[in-house]
Amino acid sequence: MKNEAITSREVDFAKWYTDVVRAAKLCDYSSVKGCMVIEPNGYAIWEKMQRILDDKFKELGHSNVQMPVFIPESLLKKEGELVEGFAPEVAWITMGGSKELEERLAFRPTSETLFCDYYKDHISSYRDLPKLYNQWCNVVRWEKETRPFLRSREFFWQEGHTIHETEKEAIEETNRMMEVYKWFHHEVLAIPSVTGLKTEKEKFAGAEFTLTNEALMYNGVALQAGTSHYFGQKFAKAYDVKFLNKENKQEYVYQTSWGTTTRMIGGLIMVHSDDYGLVLPPRIAPKQVVIIPIGNDEKVNELTNKINSELNQNNVVSYIDNTEKSPGFKFAEAEVNGIPVRIEIGARDLANNTVTVARRDTREKMTIEKEELTVDYIKNLLETIQKDMYERALERRDKLTFTATNLEEMENILNTQPGFIHADWCGNEECELKIKEIKGCKSRCVLENEPLVTGKCVCCSKEAKYHVLWGIQY
Amino acid sequence: MKNEAITSREVDFAKWYTDVVRAAKLCDYSSVKGCMVIEPNGYAIWEKMQRILDDKFKELGHSNVQMPVFIPESLLKKEGELVEGFAPEVAWITMGGSKELEERLAFRPTSETLFCDYYKDHISSYRDLPKLYNQWCNVVRWEKETRPFLRSREFFWQEGHTIHETEKEAIEETNRMMEVYKWFHHEVLAIPSVTGLKTEKEKFAGAEFTLTNEALMYNGVALQAGTSHYFGQKFAKAYDVKFLNKENKQEYVYQTSWGTTTRMIGGLIMVHSDDYGLVLPPRIAPKQVVIIPIGNDEKVNELTNKINSELNQNNVVSYIDNTEKSPGFKFAEAEVNGIPVRIEIGARDLANNTVTVARRDTREKMTIEKEELTVDYIKNLLETIQKDMYERALERRDKLTFTATNLEEMENILNTQPGFIHADWCGNEECELKIKEIKGCKSRCVLENEPLVTGKCVCCSKEAKYHVLWGIQY
Repeated sequence: MKNEAITSREVDFAKWYTDVVRAAKLCDYSSVKGCMVIEPNGYAIWEKMQRILDDKFKELGHSNVQMPVFIPESLLKKEGELVEGFAPEVAWITMGGSKELEERLAFRPTSETLFCDYYKDHISSYRDLPKLYNQWCNVVRWEKETRPFLRSREFFWQEGHTIHETEKEAIEETNRMMEVYKWFHHEVLAIPSVTGLKTEKEKFAGAEFTLTNEALMYNGVALQAGTSHYFGQKFAKAYDVKFLNKENKQEYVYQTSWGTTTRMIGGLIMVHSDDYGLVLPPRIAPKQVVIIPIGNDEKVNELTNKINSELNQNNVVSYIDNTEKSPGFKFAEAEVNGIPVRIEIGARDLANNTVTVARRDTREKMTIEKEELTVDYIKNLLETIQKDMYERALERRDKLTFTATNLEEMENILNTQPGFIHADWCGNEECELKIKEIKGCKSRCVLENEPLVTGKCVCCSKEAKYHVLWGIQY
Repeated sequence: MKNEAITSREVDFAKWYTDVVRAAKLCDYSSVKGCMVIEPNGYAIWEKMQRILDDKFKELGHSNVQMPVFIPESLLKKEGELVEGFAPEVAWITMGGSKELEERLAFRPTSETLFCDYYKDHISSYRDLPKLYNQWCNVVRWEKETRPFLRSREFFWQEGHTIHETEKEAIEETNRMMEVYKWFHHEVLAIPSVTGLKTEKEKFAGAEFTLTNEALMYNGVALQAGTSHYFGQKFAKAYDVKFLNKENKQEYVYQTSWGTTTRMIGGLIMVHSDDYGLVLPPRIAPKQVVIIPIGNDEKVNELTNKINSELNQNNVVSYIDNTEKSPGFKFAEAEVNGIPVRIEIGARDLANNTVTVARRDTREKMTIEKEELTVDYIKNLLETIQKDMYERALERRDKLTFTATNLEEMENILNTQPGFIHADWCGNEECELKIKEIKGCKSRCVLENEPLVTGKCVCCSKEAKYHVLWGIQY
């Protein structure tokens, strides 16, 4: 049955989103304005995201470190564009104990400055390069409007900061890490994201260029989830990060940074979930299978325990719900919490040598022979669900992807059903700003490898330089 | 050979400690006063500590969450003793962007207040209890004097906060978690810590009682590493955390909190390391075995790769050092970094059908038959090292554990060779303060289960109530 606590996705998407977040107990507002409490169900998803990404980072030779959470104002100000970009959002620590601080400290909004400040004293020759460091931490940006996971004053992320001997190496790293984010979205989160280049206006403050990973939500709104930046020697010059190169000359390092955040959890919800609650792709679900015994019957308990231990021994995260709630209540709870597969084992079914298996994504209930219920059956089902969820998300994305050749077409699309819009652009910021006037539609990314649509700018119809993907964003 | 970068432990212990921290690249000071940069070698130890403790916490039914990093001043002030205890050490956020905040925010020094504030809106009946939450996070305490890992303005820890239906359950949890810390110190860190009860003066601000885990460093100075607090209903009353009990009456919850921090890394160093650098017990060493091929020889590389992959396939973390440095340099580096076992494989040795295995803890070099070099041989060696390190630490601790029956004896001990001192106490705070005048010697913990030494207070020689362990602390 429909979950009464959840507004229909078709009626009010924003309300639906917060209802799902609450009903699935993922996170809650706190009495600290703009900050969230990530609850066990939500944090378990973040822990799994961290584990999978962290293993991949390390596989590629990265090490984790921890820089201080504070940035002295003078240090932050050394790179002008960065300060300009973040100044309005910085939270300032001005007192330690009862004493006024001599210099106020920023709560890190991002840590390029701290990594540069560290690197400058810890490298001297090309033999010390590359340095491939990453940190998992909290950052603060003083947002006015906040929404669970999507935008909050404190959020959690991973920020990689690497320095290299050559531009080539650093650009390869920038691309490599964007590929990791793309892989993670497609293969783990079942989200068919689009990657491309940010425009000058949208790129990270201080970066030479920014690669971005853009996902399309069920309602056609875009979510930026994962960016990778190439800084060239800009920060290195501002923070004096030099090394002796192979030609025995002093040279500034070439730098990258890349990050992704807890907002991916928001994306996961807005791509896959439904009016019955959370829906999770099996590969990211902290709990993949729930087994619900119906009635207290020896044979039932026997089979329940057997299949549960077999699954866990074979790397399927399964658990038995033997709380005192009613079966119906347990079904609904497993559904709202997005457990991908539910196994119901009852005495009457067993008498007929059958058990029931339910898919969360399609809500299909299948009655199968007891003997069919094997580890392989469940593993295959989980992989099928993963694949089907990706396919449905891809279908949805394509259904909400349009092409516009002039402003009027663009306006019509955005007024009827927003989505990704392919349209050519002359490269002129004025056109970008003019397009933004339509419901705040922004360039998501430049698709460098795709041919132009018409060859004429969608806005000024002058000659187009770029094939751009546009959309309204969170 | 002795590492030139490291001052001898016997000459200047404090200098030796910071030298080891730097030489092993564990952490470094940052240009943010009082804050440290935890470098890859140091952070890898913390990650392994986190993984082992976190698995144990979850095994015991705890879930991880994330509370906000900020605490509004009004919220912090609701529990008087807590504020008094932490007020002098709080860092305050007073500005968001360019705006002065209406209410200043504390950077969490600890999160009892936030957990209470959350719990009060998320429980209503005994059916919602217990709540067993934990979080891994950064906290800030505005310390004046700081030392790497031991005392820094920002540090990293785990804080468990649980609420229960009955006093009995909550006290059981308080004891259970202290047992976990004790287990971790003895079985994983090879540190024979002593656990007991803090005195009224030394207990956590606002706690009914505090259990502590006290380790003795090589120089006889004590380090508190892990505390578990029972709050009774004190915070519950201050923050109005009520539930409907089985008798259908409103009752305040019974609460605990328990935490341990990155300072354990400092303890690990000060108990086990030596003048040659870091020494790590195999169970906590991020890298357990290094294999160093000598010369580029086909047979050498063959065996090197074979043993390395066999070890890694059998859950021994092993790696090959095939950088371009000289073998001697590699040996020294493995030594200063505290890799428990070093395997040296050279063409000449292989011709004699032998390889060399070196223990970091004893620095013994063993020449063994090539056939002896098996996964079992290395696994046994690692376990022997773990056991031996614990035994040596225990011997050292016992050698530095004394008994005093009066102040003069206590003074003599502290002036010649500090350590743990067993002595009776009347329970009077005046005596505690008088003893503190001797080189800041403090009660480490009350040993409730141990009989009195003499029955007379070591200070006032009036009738003693407690058998207390005393010592100078970090």
